[in-house]
Amino acid sequence: MRNISRTVEAMDGMAMGTVLSRSGAMRAAVCHGKKDLRIETREDRPLAPDEVRVAVAFGGICGSDMHYFHRGAVGDFAVREPMALGHEISGTVVEWGAEVTGLEVGMKAALDPSRPCLTCARCRGGRNNLCENMFFLGSAGRFPHVQGGFAEHLVLRRDQIIPVPSDTDLLKLSVAEPLSVGLHAVARAGSMMGKRAIVTGSGPIGLLTMRSAVFAGATEVVATDMEDAALRVARELMGASSTVNVRTNPDGLSGYEAAGGYFDVAFEASGAPAALASLFKIVRRGGTIVQLGMMPPGDHPVPVNILQSREIDLIGSFRANHEFRTAVDLIVSGAIDVTAILSGTFPLEDAVTAFERAGDRSRVVKLHLAISGDAQ
Amino acid sequence: MRNISRTVEAMDGMAMGTVLSRSGAMRAAVCHGKKDLRIETREDRPLAPDEVRVAVAFGGICGSDMHYFHRGAVGDFAVREPMALGHEISGTVVEWGAEVTGLEVGMKAALDPSRPCLTCARCRGGRNNLCENMFFLGSAGRFPHVQGGFAEHLVLRRDQIIPVPSDTDLLKLSVAEPLSVGLHAVARAGSMMGKRAIVTGSGPIGLLTMRSAVFAGATEVVATDMEDAALRVARELMGASSTVNVRTNPDGLSGYEAAGGYFDVAFEASGAPAALASLFKIVRRGGTIVQLGMMPPGDHPVPVNILQSREIDLIGSFRANHEFRTAVDLIVSGAIDVTAILSGTFPLEDAVTAFERAGDRSRVVKLHLAISGDAQ
Amino acid sequence: MRNISRTVEAMDGMAMGTVLSRSGAMRAAVCHGKKDLRIETREDRPLAPDEVRVAVAFGGICGSDMHYFHRGAVGDFAVREPMALGHEISGTVVEWGAEVTGLEVGMKAALDPSRPCLTCARCRGGRNNLCENMFFLGSAGRFPHVQGGFAEHLVLRRDQIIPVPSDTDLLKLSVAEPLSVGLHAVARAGSMMGKRAIVTGSGPIGLLTMRSAVFAGATEVVATDMEDAALRVARELMGASSTVNVRTNPDGLSGYEAAGGYFDVAFEASGAPAALASLFKIVRRGGTIVQLGMMPPGDHPVPVNILQSREIDLIGSFRANHEFRTAVDLIVSGAIDVTAILSGTFPLEDAVTAFERAGDRSRVVKLHLAISGDAQ
Amino acid sequence: MRNISRTVEAMDGMAMGTVLSRSGAMRAAVCHGKKDLRIETREDRPLAPDEVRVAVAFGGICGSDMHYFHRGAVGDFAVREPMALGHEISGTVVEWGAEVTGLEVGMKAALDPSRPCLTCARCRGGRNNLCENMFFLGSAGRFPHVQGGFAEHLVLRRDQIIPVPSDTDLLKLSVAEPLSVGLHAVARAGSMMGKRAIVTGSGPIGLLTMRSAVFAGATEVVATDMEDAALRVARELMGASSTVNVRTNPDGLSGYEAAGGYFDVAFEASGAPAALASLFKIVRRGGTIVQLGMMPPGDHPVPVNILQSREIDLIGSFRANHEFRTAVDLIVSGAIDVTAILSGTFPLEDAVTAFERAGDRSRVVKLHLAISGDAQ
Repeated sequence: MRNISRTVEAMDGMAMGTVLSRSGAMRAAVCHGKKDLRIETREDRPLAPDEVRVAVAFGGICGSDMHYFHRGAVGDFAVREPMALGHEISGTVVEWGAEVTGLEVGMKAALDPSRPCLTCARCRGGRNNLCENMFFLGSAGRFPHVQGGFAEHLVLRRDQIIPVPSDTDLLKLSVAEPLSVGLHAVARAGSMMGKRAIVTGSGPIGLLTMRSAVFAGATEVVATDMEDAALRVARELMGASSTVNVRTNPDGLSGYEAAGGYFDVAFEASGAPAALASLFKIVRRGGTIVQLGMMPPGDHPVPVNILQSREIDLIGSFRANHEFRTAVDLIVSGAIDVTAILSGTFPLEDAVTAFERAGDRSRVVKLHLAISGDAQ
Repeated sequence: MRNISRTVEAMDGMAMGTVLSRSGAMRAAVCHGKKDLRIETREDRPLAPDEVRVAVAFGGICGSDMHYFHRGAVGDFAVREPMALGHEISGTVVEWGAEVTGLEVGMKAALDPSRPCLTCARCRGGRNNLCENMFFLGSAGRFPHVQGGFAEHLVLRRDQIIPVPSDTDLLKLSVAEPLSVGLHAVARAGSMMGKRAIVTGSGPIGLLTMRSAVFAGATEVVATDMEDAALRVARELMGASSTVNVRTNPDGLSGYEAAGGYFDVAFEASGAPAALASLFKIVRRGGTIVQLGMMPPGDHPVPVNILQSREIDLIGSFRANHEFRTAVDLIVSGAIDVTAILSGTFPLEDAVTAFERAGDRSRVVKLHLAISGDAQ
Repeated sequence: MRNISRTVEAMDGMAMGTVLSRSGAMRAAVCHGKKDLRIETREDRPLAPDEVRVAVAFGGICGSDMHYFHRGAVGDFAVREPMALGHEISGTVVEWGAEVTGLEVGMKAALDPSRPCLTCARCRGGRNNLCENMFFLGSAGRFPHVQGGFAEHLVLRRDQIIPVPSDTDLLKLSVAEPLSVGLHAVARAGSMMGKRAIVTGSGPIGLLTMRSAVFAGATEVVATDMEDAALRVARELMGASSTVNVRTNPDGLSGYEAAGGYFDVAFEASGAPAALASLFKIVRRGGTIVQLGMMPPGDHPVPVNILQSREIDLIGSFRANHEFRTAVDLIVSGAIDVTAILSGTFPLEDAVTAFERAGDRSRVVKLHLAISGDAQ
Repeated sequence: MRNISRTVEAMDGMAMGTVLSRSGAMRAAVCHGKKDLRIETREDRPLAPDEVRVAVAFGGICGSDMHYFHRGAVGDFAVREPMALGHEISGTVVEWGAEVTGLEVGMKAALDPSRPCLTCARCRGGRNNLCENMFFLGSAGRFPHVQGGFAEHLVLRRDQIIPVPSDTDLLKLSVAEPLSVGLHAVARAGSMMGKRAIVTGSGPIGLLTMRSAVFAGATEVVATDMEDAALRVARELMGASSTVNVRTNPDGLSGYEAAGGYFDVAFEASGAPAALASLFKIVRRGGTIVQLGMMPPGDHPVPVNILQSREIDLIGSFRANHEFRTAVDLIVSGAIDVTAILSGTFPLEDAVTAFERAGDRSRVVKLHLAISGDAQ
C-alpha cells in the first residue's frame, strides 16, 4: 500500500507550485452538484474585525467531501448552491481584522473548521461541537452553505487559527481535524486506561480512532475492515493488536462472544449498520459502544433488549470539540505520527482526479490537495 | 381509578389471613408453564451459615411475572422446570444460619431479590446488577431456575435482608424493588437537577421512574401512555408536569420537536419500539435516552445517524443496584409515597385470579399477593 | 425570627416609592472604602449593540457586599475607586441595543451578575464561572472595578437577562443568584440522590445549599451554625433533618464519627477553618467535601493524610454557572420557596441602615434594598 | 545512577539461592519494632477452602516498609506484635484449598496484597481499596496485624492470585503493586488525554505515576524532586517532559504561575506538605490535585480560599483497586517497562542490609529481596 501511495505522491509532484493567485482573487474546488466539481476563480471576501485571512496549504479529502462529489449530498444535506468543499486544512496567515492580536504574516497555523456561536446552551455547556448555530467549513447543513477550505484563501474567526512552530509539516498538520474526530470519540468513551477496545472500520477515521485509543491507554485494540490493505496499516502503523477482515472471515469476531463479551469499548467507525449490530454480542455487560461512523439516514436495527439488559451505552460522537487543539499538539510534537494516513497529494487543479482516486481503498488511505503555492 | 382499586382491595380483604403454613412446609405460587400457575405445598430448604429464612408478607405482581404466566417465558428465558414466581417482596425474619448477626425473630425487613456473586469483574466494579453469576428471585435466566418469592417461606443471603422499623407498612415496603428500578434508571441518567425529562410508558415502572426523577430534582417531567387512567395517576400522584395520551393524541409530542428538541433526558419505560423511536426528535442534542422498559427480543429500528450527529446517549438500565437501599429508606421515611401504585391485594391462594386481573390497565396499576399470614 | 423581620418590612414600607430617577441619571449605593457607603446620583452609560438597560427592582445584601462595607475589601480585593455594590438583583427591561431581540419594555427579568468572555479555555470547557476574563457585578477583583447592581439603572449583556412571567415576585426573584450558588455547590458534589449530607453554616448560602441538596434528592441533611435562630430556619423551612449548634454543643457532631464516618457529602458554607477541619472525621471514606464558604486568605489546616488515606475529595465551588437559570425556574415555578430568606426590605436611600442591620444573625437571614420605583 | 545500581545487583548475586525452606516451615523478615527486623523461621498456616499457598519470589521494599523499619510505625499505626513486612510481591503457586480452581503447581503469579471483604458499602460501590474491613499485607492498621509478604510462603485468597505466562520476569512483576498505585492515582484524576501534568516527588511511586500519566495520554509531564539522580530517571526513562530540582532551584516552578496556572492535573507524590502548598498557584482554574504521597499525621497548610475560588479539586488517592490487574497486564506485555525502578536485589537473609541501603536516593530507586529459592 505504501509503495503505491508513494507513486501517487511522485506523480503529484509534477504539478506542484503551478497554482497562482492574483490579488483579491483565488482558485477553489467548488461542488455544483453530483459529479460536478469545478476549479473556479472566486473573489476574496472582506474581513470582519475578529477575522483572519489565511492561505490554505493542504486539504485532506474526507468521506463527506466524497459524498458531496459522488451524490451531491451528505445524508439529508443536498448541495443547493455552488459550495467549495474541504475542512481538513492547514495554512499560513495572510491578514487580519482590527481586533485580532498575536499573529504575524506568514505564520503557519492549524485551521479549525468549526465556528460555534459560543452563546447557545450547548456552547455554554462546553459542547461546542453540538452548537445549535454552527458554521462548519464545506457543509450544506445550513443555507446559504458554509463555503469550504479547498480554496487558496479562506476567512476564519480568530479562534479558528492555532499558530504552530515554523518547522511544522503543513501536510501532516492538515490531519489534525480527522485526528481530532478520533480523539473526540475516545473522549466520549470515558477513560481508556487499561481497556480492551475494538474499532469497526479502518478507514482514515477508524485508523485515527484506534491510534487515539492506544494513545489514551487502551491495552488491546482489535481492528476490523473489509480490505486487507487497510488492516495492514492498522496493525503495522496505528497500534492495532490484531485485525479481522470481516469480508473474508465473516465469523472472525465470534471468539469474542464467550463469557458474556470481551470488549470494554467499541468504536463503530464504518457507518455500516451490520457492523454496529455485530458489536452487541462482543461488548461486555456495562460496556460502551461509540457510534462515530456516519450511517445512512433512516432507521437501523439495534438489539435494544440486549442493550437494556446488559446496560450497554450506545453513544453518539460527532466531529470534535477541544480535541482539535490536542490533535494539533500531538502532530506538532510528533507524539502521534500521521504519516500512515498520507497516501498522496494532488494539486488543486487536479482535484477531480484526486476525488476519483480517493475511493480506492486497496491503494489509498487518504489523498490530499496541495492548494496554495504561497503557503508552502 | 382509585375508587375502583379500593373496591378490589375490599374484595381481597375477605380472604385475608386464611393462609396457613405448617412447620417445615409452605405454600407457593409456582409456574409450570404457559397459563399454568399452581398454588402448591413445598418443603423448606435448609439454611447455609450466611443465610436467613423469612416469612414473605406481600408480593407485587411484576410485568415479568405476567410474561411467565401468559407466555411461559420472559424474552428468551422459558420456564423449563416448576418455578415459584415473584421478586417484589417484604417480610419478617424467621431464623438464620450460624454466621448471621444483627437479626431478631419477627423483625420486619425489606427483601432484596438480587444475590450477586460479589467477586466477578462487574461486582468488583460496583455494578452488582450486572453480575455474571447473579441469582435473581423468580428468574428462569439460569438453570436450575432461581425460585421466587411468592412463597410463604424464602431463604436469602444475609445481605438481602434490610431490617426496617416495626411500624413499617409491609405492603408499601414491597414496592421497594420496583421503586429501586426507577431510581436506578435515574441514576443511570446522571444528575437530574434542573433537567427536563419525559417518561414514555406510565405503568408501575414508568410511574416510579417519574417519581424518582422529580425526587432527584427534575424541574419538568412529561408522561406518556395509551391509557388515561395511568396518566391520571402520573399527573395527580407521581409528579408529572403534563401528560400525553399517545393513542388518542398521536401527534401530542410534536410540539417538543421545535428548536432541535426539548428534553434533556428521556426514560423509555414502555418496552414499545415505537416509543423509543419517537424520542430521537424530541431529545435535545447531547441528551440522554435511558432504555429501561423490556423490549421484545430481536432488532428494533433506531435512527443511528441522528444518535451520532446529535451525540445522543442511548443507555440501558437493568434492575437496580444499591438503589434498593435508597428505595427502602424513601418508603420507610415516607419521602416517597407509593400508595398510588397499590391497586389491590389478593390472598396467595387466589394468585391465578390476581394474575388474570393484573393486566387490566384501565383499573389496575399493580396488584399484590398477601402471602404469609405469619408475617402480617 | 420571622416576627422580627416582618417588623422590619413594615418599617421599610414607609419609604417605598420615594426613589425617583430623572432621564439619563440614577441613584446608586456606592462604596468609597471602609464604612463609606454613599447614595449618589450617576449618569447612565450608553448601550453597546448587544446590551440592555434595566431598572433594578430589588437587591439582596450579600456577605461580600458586607465585607466591602465593613472592611473596604473582600479577601485580597480592595476597593480602589468608587464602586456600586450589589449582585443579587431583579428588575425590568428599559431599552436595548441594535442587535438585541426578544425583549419588551417593562418586561420583568432575572438578572445574571456574571458576564463571562465565552472564548477562554474555561468558557469553552463549559465552566463559565471560572472565566479568565469575567466581569462580575460589584466586584473589585479587576480594575477598573465592575460596577454593581445597587443602582436604579444597570447595563447588562443580552444573555444576562432572563425574562420571567409578568406575575413573578421580583423580590423573591432577586434570590436567584444566591440560590444558584447553592445549586452549583450541589452540582459540584455530583448526584445527590439517596445521599446523606451535612451543611456547616446556616447563613443565606448555607440555607439555600441545604434546600438545594434536598431538592436534588438527599435523604438526610444535617445543618450546623452558632445561632439557634438560623438553625430554626434550617429545620423548619429549608429541609434540614436535624441541626447542631456547634457553639452551645461543641461535641454535637461526634456521634457521626462512629464506623468511619457518616456523611456522603459535606458542604462547608461557613467560611470558618474550624468547620472544615471538623468534617474529615464525619465524612465516610470516598466521600466529598465541597468548600463554598469564602475563607480568609492564607493557609488553613487540613488533615491531608486523612484526605489521602480515605480518598476524600475536597472540592471548591465558586459562584454559579448555568444553575442561575435553574434557580430562576425554581423560584418562578414555586418549586423552591425562598420566603424564609427574606428578612426585610429597605429603600435604596436607607442602604447604610440596611448594611448596619444586615449582620445581626439573631434577627436577620438576608436584607434587601428596594431600588427603582419604576421597576415595581 | 544505573551504573551504581548494577553494582548493587552484582553484589546481591553472590547470596542468591542460599535461602532454603523445609516442609511446613519458612523464613520471613519480621519487624519487632523500631530498628528491629529479624529473619525468622515461621510455621506455615493451614489453608481455608478458598485460599492458596504461594512461594514468594521477590519483594520490593516500599516506603511504608521503611517507616516500620526506621520508626516502628507508619503514621498512627505502630507495630504491636511481630509482623512480617512486605506487600510488593510475586511468586509461584504451591498448593490450594478445596474450592479453588484454575491453578497448577509452579504456576507464576502476580500477588495482589489487597483482600477486601467484598460486602461492605465501599466494596459494593466498586471501591475495594476503601474497604472497611480490608486485610492488606504487612500492615499494622488492624490488630492482630496482617502478616506481610517478605516470607517464603504466604497464604492468599484465590482472587489475590493472578496467573501470568511462564516466561514472565518475576522480579519485574513484583513492581505491579507500586505501578498499580500510580495507575490508580491517574484514574482518580479522570481522563488524562491531552492533559498537562506535574508530579511532585520522583521516588518509585512518583516515577510510576508519571509513567502512568504518559501511558494514559498526558501530553506533558513535569517532574520535581530534590535529587538529580531521581530526576534523571524521570526524564530519561519514565516519560517526564522536563524536570525541576526544587532544592537546587527553589524558584523553578514559578514560570508556570503566569496566566492563572499551567497544569490541568498535579500529582503530589512526595508526602511533603510544602510540595502540596506549591501546587495551588500553578494548577489552572478547575484543575485537579491528586494527593497520593503519604503525609505525616496531623494538619497541613492548604490555601482553602484559592481552592474554593478557583474550583480546584483536591483528591485523595490510596493504594489501588482493579488497577492491579491493569498493572500486571502492562508489565507482562511490556507496554510499560519497569526496569528503571529496579536498583538491586538482596537475599532475604540480608534484608537488614537492604533496608539500610534502600533510603539512599542518590543511588537507589527501589531495592528488592529475593525470597524463596523455590520460586525462581
